Amino acid sequence: MINKSIEKAVGKIAEVPLNLVKQLYPFKKKTRASNKLGLPPGSIIYVGEKKVDKVKITLTEYDEANVETCEIKSVDEIDPFTDTPQVTWVSVCGLHETEFLMQIGERFKVHPLVLEDILNTETRPKIEITDDYLFIVMKLITYNAEHKILESEQVSFILGKSFVFSFMERNDEIFNPIKERIKNQLGKVRKKGSDYLLYVLMDVVVDQFFLALEKVDERIELLDDEVLNAPEKSQVEKIYNLKNLLLMLRRSAAPMREIVNQLIKDDSDLIDDSTEPYLRDLYDHTIHISESIELQREITTGLMETYLSMMSNKMNEVMKVLTVIATIFIPLTFIVGIYGMNFPNMPEMGWSWAYFAVWGVMIGVVIAMIFYFRKKDWF
Amino acid sequence: MINKSIEKAVGKIAEVPLNLVKQLYPFKKKTRASNKLGLPPGSIIYVGEKKVDKVKITLTEYDEANVETCEIKSVDEIDPFTDTPQVTWVSVCGLHETEFLMQIGERFKVHPLVLEDILNTETRPKIEITDDYLFIVMKLITYNAEHKILESEQVSFILGKSFVFSFMERNDEIFNPIKERIKNQLGKVRKKGSDYLLYVLMDVVVDQFFLALEKVDERIELLDDEVLNAPEKSQVEKIYNLKNLLLMLRRSAAPMREIVNQLIKDDSDLIDDSTEPYLRDLYDHTIHISESIELQREITTGLMETYLSMMSNKMNEVMKVLTVIATIFIPLTFIVGIYGMNFPNMPEMGWSWAYFAVWGVMIGVVIAMIFYFRKKDWF
Amino acid sequence: MINKSIEKAVGKIAEVPLNLVKQLYPFKKKTRASNKLGLPPGSIIYVGEKKVDKVKITLTEYDEANVETCEIKSVDEIDPFTDTPQVTWVSVCGLHETEFLMQIGERFKVHPLVLEDILNTETRPKIEITDDYLFIVMKLITYNAEHKILESEQVSFILGKSFVFSFMERNDEIFNPIKERIKNQLGKVRKKGSDYLLYVLMDVVVDQFFLALEKVDERIELLDDEVLNAPEKSQVEKIYNLKNLLLMLRRSAAPMREIVNQLIKDDSDLIDDSTEPYLRDLYDHTIHISESIELQREITTGLMETYLSMMSNKMNEVMKVLTVIATIFIPLTFIVGIYGMNFPNMPEMGWSWAYFAVWGVMIGVVIAMIFYFRKKDWF
Amino acid sequence: MINKSIEKAVGKIAEVPLNLVKQLYPFKKKTRASNKLGLPPGSIIYVGEKKVDKVKITLTEYDEANVETCEIKSVDEIDPFTDTPQVTWVSVCGLHETEFLMQIGERFKVHPLVLEDILNTETRPKIEITDDYLFIVMKLITYNAEHKILESEQVSFILGKSFVFSFMERNDEIFNPIKERIKNQLGKVRKKGSDYLLYVLMDVVVDQFFLALEKVDERIELLDDEVLNAPEKSQVEKIYNLKNLLLMLRRSAAPMREIVNQLIKDDSDLIDDSTEPYLRDLYDHTIHISESIELQREITTGLMETYLSMMSNKMNEVMKVLTVIATIFIPLTFIVGIYGMNFPNMPEMGWSWAYFAVWGVMIGVVIAMIFYFRKKDWF
Amino acid sequence: MINKSIEKAVGKIAEVPLNLVKQLYPFKKKTRASNKLGLPPGSIIYVGEKKVDKVKITLTEYDEANVETCEIKSVDEIDPFTDTPQVTWVSVCGLHETEFLMQIGERFKVHPLVLEDILNTETRPKIEITDDYLFIVMKLITYNAEHKILESEQVSFILGKSFVFSFMERNDEIFNPIKERIKNQLGKVRKKGSDYLLYVLMDVVVDQFFLALEKVDERIELLDDEVLNAPEKSQVEKIYNLKNLLLMLRRSAAPMREIVNQLIKDDSDLIDDSTEPYLRDLYDHTIHISESIELQREITTGLMETYLSMMSNKMNEVMKVLTVIATIFIPLTFIVGIYGMNFPNMPEMGWSWAYFAVWGVMIGVVIAMIFYFRKKDWF
Repeated sequence: MINKSIEKAVGKIAEVPLNLVKQLYPFKKKTRASNKLGLPPGSIIYVGEKKVDKVKITLTEYDEANVETCEIKSVDEIDPFTDTPQVTWVSVCGLHETEFLMQIGERFKVHPLVLEDILNTETRPKIEITDDYLFIVMKLITYNAEHKILESEQVSFILGKSFVFSFMERNDEIFNPIKERIKNQLGKVRKKGSDYLLYVLMDVVVDQFFLALEKVDERIELLDDEVLNAPEKSQVEKIYNLKNLLLMLRRSAAPMREIVNQLIKDDSDLIDDSTEPYLRDLYDHTIHISESIELQREITTGLMETYLSMMSNKMNEVMKVLTVIATIFIPLTFIVGIYGMNFPNMPEMGWSWAYFAVWGVMIGVVIAMIFYFRKKDWF
Repeated sequence: MINKSIEKAVGKIAEVPLNLVKQLYPFKKKTRASNKLGLPPGSIIYVGEKKVDKVKITLTEYDEANVETCEIKSVDEIDPFTDTPQVTWVSVCGLHETEFLMQIGERFKVHPLVLEDILNTETRPKIEITDDYLFIVMKLITYNAEHKILESEQVSFILGKSFVFSFMERNDEIFNPIKERIKNQLGKVRKKGSDYLLYVLMDVVVDQFFLALEKVDERIELLDDEVLNAPEKSQVEKIYNLKNLLLMLRRSAAPMREIVNQLIKDDSDLIDDSTEPYLRDLYDHTIHISESIELQREITTGLMETYLSMMSNKMNEVMKVLTVIATIFIPLTFIVGIYGMNFPNMPEMGWSWAYFAVWGVMIGVVIAMIFYFRKKDWF
Repeated sequence: MINKSIEKAVGKIAEVPLNLVKQLYPFKKKTRASNKLGLPPGSIIYVGEKKVDKVKITLTEYDEANVETCEIKSVDEIDPFTDTPQVTWVSVCGLHETEFLMQIGERFKVHPLVLEDILNTETRPKIEITDDYLFIVMKLITYNAEHKILESEQVSFILGKSFVFSFMERNDEIFNPIKERIKNQLGKVRKKGSDYLLYVLMDVVVDQFFLALEKVDERIELLDDEVLNAPEKSQVEKIYNLKNLLLMLRRSAAPMREIVNQLIKDDSDLIDDSTEPYLRDLYDHTIHISESIELQREITTGLMETYLSMMSNKMNEVMKVLTVIATIFIPLTFIVGIYGMNFPNMPEMGWSWAYFAVWGVMIGVVIAMIFYFRKKDWF
Repeated sequence: MINKSIEKAVGKIAEVPLNLVKQLYPFKKKTRASNKLGLPPGSIIYVGEKKVDKVKITLTEYDEANVETCEIKSVDEIDPFTDTPQVTWVSVCGLHETEFLMQIGERFKVHPLVLEDILNTETRPKIEITDDYLFIVMKLITYNAEHKILESEQVSFILGKSFVFSFMERNDEIFNPIKERIKNQLGKVRKKGSDYLLYVLMDVVVDQFFLALEKVDERIELLDDEVLNAPEKSQVEKIYNLKNLLLMLRRSAAPMREIVNQLIKDDSDLIDDSTEPYLRDLYDHTIHISESIELQREITTGLMETYLSMMSNKMNEVMKVLTVIATIFIPLTFIVGIYGMNFPNMPEMGWSWAYFAVWGVMIGVVIAMIFYFRKKDWF
Repeated sequence: MINKSIEKAVGKIAEVPLNLVKQLYPFKKKTRASNKLGLPPGSIIYVGEKKVDKVKITLTEYDEANVETCEIKSVDEIDPFTDTPQVTWVSVCGLHETEFLMQIGERFKVHPLVLEDILNTETRPKIEITDDYLFIVMKLITYNAEHKILESEQVSFILGKSFVFSFMERNDEIFNPIKERIKNQLGKVRKKGSDYLLYVLMDVVVDQFFLALEKVDERIELLDDEVLNAPEKSQVEKIYNLKNLLLMLRRSAAPMREIVNQLIKDDSDLIDDSTEPYLRDLYDHTIHISESIELQREITTGLMETYLSMMSNKMNEVMKVLTVIATIFIPLTFIVGIYGMNFPNMPEMGWSWAYFAVWGVMIGVVIAMIFYFRKKDWF
């Protein structure tokens, strides 16, 4: 009964990692290699799928006293906000319109390889530090509660003296709490510069990772219970998928550590000293994530081992039943076979109590066998 | 008989790691991610369970000549003790009243992220060194002799020029021996500064780890005996849980090494040179703990392997019994079957000694079989 | 049905890695050791197979304004192009005519060990930096779409102040897009120096690696589906070959990382500062490749494990069928055996309903058995 | 026959590692944690067992010209030998009388933590370098030829300007050859200072390790032969114990490497330059030991794997016998069963040659079966 | 047929690694530990077996213009060649006459520990750099084509300003090609100094390693084919031995890398700058060897895994045959058993077509079974 309900629960979540695995699988159809082969380096082409219908660009400018938010269509609309001392945050959601990006590249003197990396959603998470700006690529893992799947997308940030650009494929609602905080002057974000804004944005990406790991953890616990209570054929596939999922997550998580570490180490003018404790805190979180994934991987490895033992124990069980039944009845069948023989001069045939004696012998054999199996601790 | 008593003994301790595993499981209900998502960094919220009824704050002030101990309720009561040359130790047990912590943060100019880390009981063990204070987070693993379980909690220390703050969730009785030593002028603690007090407190946390490992060791030995003497189905789960327990312990123990190492390396003014030999000793202990956990993990891995071999050997045993029985009786059953046939003109039926000849043949077959199995070393 | 089509698809690609494995197998017939043993170091002998009929040497000279391309036969034809400020690219395809190489060695003062390495196709990928030139050996993995196999060959580059030599065994068509770009002034290559040309050539080699990994990935996915849906005897060999293939690919890919890293670190005059961002990008790609191979290896390891579990589960299935059948029929056979005995005074023989009673007992036994197996969840 | 004798030989040595394992097991009854909990750091308490009846203290003073040896009872007797230019070696065997140690601590100004480490026989091997003295803790593994067991004990050295203290729990006869050499002026020891004496003493400890590894090696070879020639149930436990033994040995050996390395690196005044080549030689030996243990561990791991394969092959054998017997006789039993049926109108019953025909069919079936099994290579 | 021939081929080479393993086994009878225990450090005793009858010492002196070669008997004969600007190479083959070595030690002021290392054939490969000379110990692995075994021996070199000493246990014919080249002025060796001669000698040792690995590789390929085509019981031992062989080879090969690296890094006056490119080339070769051994180890590990799967698949096969046969015939035997019962009033007995109906039922059962097994894909 209990097993049944576990089964059901796992059944539902079971699709989660499967889907993610499929999505995160390396070198899928639209990767760099096949699409961009032969093009000169720095070619600005979006290699991902179109994940939102319309590109949405939101501009927020604020300092301690004022906030202004507006949706914009073209780069020209940014002009009035540049060269002001206030912090300007341009949030781009949807990457399939490359025009806008190229204009930004020109106007803000961003290297073409940076633009290429923003659009190439297969880019390995990285950080590029130049004198004028700082470029960061991260992977955002979000849990889609509706479809019960984990989704992976690429998020890039460009930090300048008084502006932050953020680029993502979809799901820009994860930044809504920050927009709220800016609007309502919650926390310190309004009192601090663009570097602190970058920290806050990265912190959100990292926090989403914790949420995703929590989901993975739930799944491990379910599988754990399932394997220990009702080991079953179908669990191999689930554990295998879980392992692959964790490989994918590690691939996305591991470089984040280096990125934040380099942010701390580099004494770029773009990062204020007062932001450093926050970055160190962020760094601790990225280590925490890496260690958690490693821990989950080791638990999953142990789970596979345990599954194999459980299955092998079940097999033992089956063999024991066969052996007990066969070992008890094969000798008996032999005994009754003897007196099924048609020899005319079998002395036993003449004794009137012979039939009952045979029964006695057979019952004796059974008792001896049971005694023997008991001693061997077989049942 | 022996196995039975081992069984019983292990049965009791068996719950230990299980409970700990459940308790230490990463990303459980009340973790950072789900509770604090969307809050600005530095939010002071206690994420653990309320583990003691009332927060208990004990203040101890001492120098070589005098000691004074009192229980306090508010931060104001600390005021007379600050700015004195004596060492002041404020020990806080219970973290669910955040008010007190926030007052301390203000009065002693502690960074909000430090306060956040004290309350977030999921914080990874760490050390933060600033000009004014030194902040350490450690995991305390205590063995609860009553419930026979291992308990994990977070302990934080803030070391200033002449004061030490210690924060823990419960179990502050582990510091009682130190209080005794201060009161009765045992050891060197009264002759030395706040840095030596910090060392003594950390030493207690590390010592508790040794005790916990001793308990784990007892359990490994029991399982070891059990697996080698009476391999059984239920041991898979025990070994699996033990492995996970050791993963959790490693997670808590590993960062301690870096923490103590950084304490030694950093030439902060807060740490006196004469305390360094003690810290180096502490460092050796943390290495000892890490190595012991690694050793226990390797032994457990070997135990799993051994368990699998033992079970597979048991299976071999079962198969051999089946094979011996079947191989002896199947041919015999065939022979008696022959003479159960009803053909009218079976020559053997005419011979008066035929029945006995059949018996002779059958006994011959049995002897040959037994001889064959002996040669094969099967029994 | 589905399995059948998977089978077919895998069947085709299955040869791919097998062939590659055979080709990449270390220390094959024509390696350094057996061929060159006893020769003094620096002996210029081609150890590979003759892979193209005729050596083809193409010379391209260009600057921003002009391009000139011609096929040449001897080193003398290069003379007019040396010592000009334009970039000269000499592409040699086919290495079995060592004469030409020796002349280049003399004229451009290249160390004999460099010439030896160009011809010894077993050379480990490496970089040599001298004051006058920079020498790079890489492995090129190309996917031969016609024969559906992966091919490995050695590519070497010599970079001088205003020239680049490229040496390869065959397949020089992979550089055709670059020739196109130079001719048609696409991308930046015409505006930049010989170092940028070297980068572009290395980038092509790295891109081919991505393509190869994509093919491997397709194969892993096919095997993955196959193993999870229709585990079969023949898959062991496929997984084993895949593992070996990945070992070979890693061997070729791993040193590339160091090579590009050293190119970036070394402040040789031959590499212009403006080329560095491109090399850093290339470096990221080499890390990406290494990590992908590592990922694929871990997935393959998991696949093997999963295969073993699947096969063991199939075995369980078989055993269960045997056990169910045997356990049901062996007791029945015993029962019918009893009434096959010829004792004259078996009371049951006298009861007219005895035959039907026996049937009743037997049906009862079967029902009980089925009930028992159901409870044990066996079918 | 051969197996029998192997068995016997292994049987004898088999106890060796078992005993050692028990003895070396971490965190045993008398460890630091349980005994010393709550005591202030630097408490001087002996935590080991009393391994010799009486503490024996031998003092040897020598220079190139003279030697003097005497047994002493109290620290006062050392006084006349201190502050002389000759080398003084005080060898203490037996640690349960802590009085003497405390007096030495006072007189030679040794840090209390050093004294604590000498007595705490669970101390991790370590080196402490101060301006006045150099403190080394090592593990001595000796082979007790009488009981055929390996014994582990702790050896500590204190090196001063012109004196060496050596502390051990028992077995001080391993230093006898050195005493001989000093007495008879063999080797260079008389011509050199206290640092060379320290080297010679450490060299003896390291040499004992080689002897212990030789014994382990003999055991591996025996087990090796045994597993390959006569795989057996009981070998699991032996391999498991061997693995644990090697884990223990590694734990004792690994830190020696760092210790000697630090001795070489540190430019303490206590170590003369001319001693360095000897220390480098010692360092090579410690690496040799570490590598040998690692090698033995890998061989043991391979042995376990091989054992499992051997057992699984044996199982295969058993299954084949069962299958061959069952597969041959089950169809035959069916055939004879047919003609045991009592139907009145079985046409075969009327044929006089039917019985012999049945025999013919059965022999045919057997031949076909044997042919089939031969083809399958089953016997 | 094919399997048979593979079998034969492997059979022959199979002895190779076995022999090597036995020979290379660590801590064998004549090791340092047992032979030299108790002797003062620097004792000059040969610990290996006497591998050649007579010690053969060849002296070669050359510069660009002249060569002179002679066999010598005593150290005195070297005198006229020392202190000349020409390069003097003294090649010693056979180490059991220690007298000669001691004289060299005295005359050339070689440290006694160096002499000890030359004679102790268990020395770990190492390099010692002093102001006056450079001492190198390497392991030479040669393939003995006659006995088809790999042989391991120790080679040591001492490089001075204008001389090179080489010491080996036997097999000095591997240096013959160099003697030829010196004599016939082939290559650069006559134009260069003693450091280049050392490089050439070391290059020969490294080249022999490549040859040995080629042999191992052939063996892996043979085993590979064998395991994939005809998995068999005896292969466990072969793979196990191969693994141990590779462990031994790694032990000999790994330190070579450090040795060559230190040669390059150290700016000793004894090594000319122009020799450095050659040493870097040698370094690449040592990395190549290490990586090849690692690769071979991973392939062997995969092979073991594959072997296990193959054997387990064979077992599956066996079980399936048993199950199919038993599952088909056990029910049939039951059916015929029914009509062997002797109940007087079995209605079926009265029906004239009953016997044929029973046959019909039985044929139906068989067809159903076969259909079922087909569906299950069992044959």
